[in-house]
Amino acid sequence: MSRIVMKFGGTSVADLDRIRNVAARVKREVDAGNQVAVVVSAMAGTTNQLVKWCQDLSPLHDAREYDTVVATGEQVTIGLTAIALQAVGVEARSWQGWQVPIRTDNAHGKARVEEIDGTELIARMEQGQVPVVAGFQGIEPGRNRVTTLGRGGSDLSAVALAAALKADRCDIYTDVDGVYTTDPRIVPRARKLERISYEEMLELASVGAKVLQTRSVELAMKARVRVQVLSSFEDKPGSLVVDEDEIMEKPIVSGIAYSRDEAKVTLRRVPDRPGVAARVFGPLSEANVNVDMIVQNVGADGTTDMTFTVGKADLPRARDILERGKAEVGFEALLADDNVAKISVVGIGMRTHAGVASSMFGALAEKGINIQVISTSEIKVSVLVPADYTELAVRALHTVYGLDA
Amino acid sequence: MSRIVMKFGGTSVADLDRIRNVAARVKREVDAGNQVAVVVSAMAGTTNQLVKWCQDLSPLHDAREYDTVVATGEQVTIGLTAIALQAVGVEARSWQGWQVPIRTDNAHGKARVEEIDGTELIARMEQGQVPVVAGFQGIEPGRNRVTTLGRGGSDLSAVALAAALKADRCDIYTDVDGVYTTDPRIVPRARKLERISYEEMLELASVGAKVLQTRSVELAMKARVRVQVLSSFEDKPGSLVVDEDEIMEKPIVSGIAYSRDEAKVTLRRVPDRPGVAARVFGPLSEANVNVDMIVQNVGADGTTDMTFTVGKADLPRARDILERGKAEVGFEALLADDNVAKISVVGIGMRTHAGVASSMFGALAEKGINIQVISTSEIKVSVLVPADYTELAVRALHTVYGLDA
Repeated sequence: MSRIVMKFGGTSVADLDRIRNVAARVKREVDAGNQVAVVVSAMAGTTNQLVKWCQDLSPLHDAREYDTVVATGEQVTIGLTAIALQAVGVEARSWQGWQVPIRTDNAHGKARVEEIDGTELIARMEQGQVPVVAGFQGIEPGRNRVTTLGRGGSDLSAVALAAALKADRCDIYTDVDGVYTTDPRIVPRARKLERISYEEMLELASVGAKVLQTRSVELAMKARVRVQVLSSFEDKPGSLVVDEDEIMEKPIVSGIAYSRDEAKVTLRRVPDRPGVAARVFGPLSEANVNVDMIVQNVGADGTTDMTFTVGKADLPRARDILERGKAEVGFEALLADDNVAKISVVGIGMRTHAGVASSMFGALAEKGINIQVISTSEIKVSVLVPADYTELAVRALHTVYGLDA
Repeated sequence: MSRIVMKFGGTSVADLDRIRNVAARVKREVDAGNQVAVVVSAMAGTTNQLVKWCQDLSPLHDAREYDTVVATGEQVTIGLTAIALQAVGVEARSWQGWQVPIRTDNAHGKARVEEIDGTELIARMEQGQVPVVAGFQGIEPGRNRVTTLGRGGSDLSAVALAAALKADRCDIYTDVDGVYTTDPRIVPRARKLERISYEEMLELASVGAKVLQTRSVELAMKARVRVQVLSSFEDKPGSLVVDEDEIMEKPIVSGIAYSRDEAKVTLRRVPDRPGVAARVFGPLSEANVNVDMIVQNVGADGTTDMTFTVGKADLPRARDILERGKAEVGFEALLADDNVAKISVVGIGMRTHAGVASSMFGALAEKGINIQVISTSEIKVSVLVPADYTELAVRALHTVYGLDA
């Protein structure tokens, strides 16, 4: 007997047939003797429609009312899923965030889960009932208003619930069947990873392998929830995201990720004196502009060129902020380039193996790809290259590290 | 300064433009210095879609899950309406049934409102905030599950809220602009009634003038809530449903109603002995078949013909129940006719005026309309006629009682 949280995303509950399919999958786990809790998203397309209505009525709408409106998407799905489960003989009951309760902070529209009281749900699971819990929503500290967790928050709900229920596993059913060594659309010979560590998953997710929402992986790592990513349309095992200790053979490189969502900013001839970095990055941080890679080289004449990346969508705002601070910082020119791609090589084995970065640079050089920026962490090496070279770079690296199937 | 509850039905909030129109109307009342609470239904079509999903998944679905699903319709509207109000500068907040709370009994799918705690809402209205309350929904005694009041329940929510808030008036905005002396589609010269008593409204509503849900009128009468029915698309006063004492000139006849929703059942040669009526109507009542008009004439040979009406939809069930009890009751034959119409003349002045019934029979006789069944109450005379004569009968009576505009 295992206790499992099964989470189904929007495409997995897009219509009544798919909801019946979800019920059949849940029934199979129940019939196998497992205790099951289900977390569902809104039916595909619903949330977008609800968000659009709020936007159209007022671009600066009240986030509390936005939450009231968009939380209905999941509420519909939990009721329908409970009905579908009952129709195949599985005892089930729907739970909205406030009913569990799933307590969050007050940040409407992007709330954080603070505490889930799992007592009642555990008691019912032990009696054979399947709780069907609304993803993406909770209740604020005043206990009267509904909150939502921000887009993709249903993954987070599922992991948080799995932690609260002390579940053996959190199965995330989605439209891909697992985590791959890289994007199979670019490298057809990409392999599905049987196991991957939380840290690797975080690096892969945050740099572009969009399978699991980053915050949900962070939470899984913190709460030590074993997460399985698998397809709701096919019937085969997925990828298990687990603690490093559960992985016997630690690969030097587990996967190659890429992102075309960043833009490069270079400040030319910045005076090389103490405090200048704070004057550049302080105002960006205050304006909620996330800065990722940063490189700085000391020049010969007491000035330096400073290069960093920001999200593409943030580039106009970043440029505006920096230009306004030009006199104070004292740089000569601002150059921006949003035609770049970040390519990353990720693997926990890097911690104990040298030479990963240099073989990366070698492989790229061999293909004639110019590296613009380099940044490294314990389990990742990232480079910025011209966007046109994305596929070529990913394919070359996938082969070099022996990842081809 | 008045305190007003404004209720908008599904067609009045069918899309964003209409919701903006609702916001404009509410703003006008607020700007005039009134305290306003708003009750809204689901956007037109939404509830039908949600009900259909539940039905399609399982015809015998769990009513608690049905309530979870269908209550979302109103939840969407309250959020959007609050956003629309804020956009035109009116301070507003949405309230779901459980948030108010609107306490109901446990009868999921057709719950009755038991108590509304208006304390918090009154406090906020006194500070200038407009509560936007979800119609049609509440919370069951266990305080954890959402209930709905049954179709048309938003009118009931509005009246119950008006009572709880001690409102001066409950304005029901709908797609007709008031209560008419009869159906204007049949009698183009039908007049809008400025005022009508609760009792008259009940008789008119229950016999076919479908403007206000019957239960909401009963509640208004009991709680003495003044109700105004008016159009959300035109800008003119509607009809006021009030206590008889507020009506100075009590009309002998206020309106002519009709219903083609009933069927006539006749039991031929029923033995005329004590207890026979109980044996006929007891089983029907147990099966929730509503019986309306009942007439019985004693015959010469110790038997009687018994005639009554049931809802058309209930006829097959009623026939089945009666045929099964044939031996026990001892009737000779069951005749049924669903091609009948009930025509009613309604007016509180009847209480003190004789001759209304006889002028009705005279007017129908003059047009060659055969009366099949007659039933009377304090403020109503109803007759059953062949359905083909409906329009002719309504028009003749409308003229006879001087109701033509």
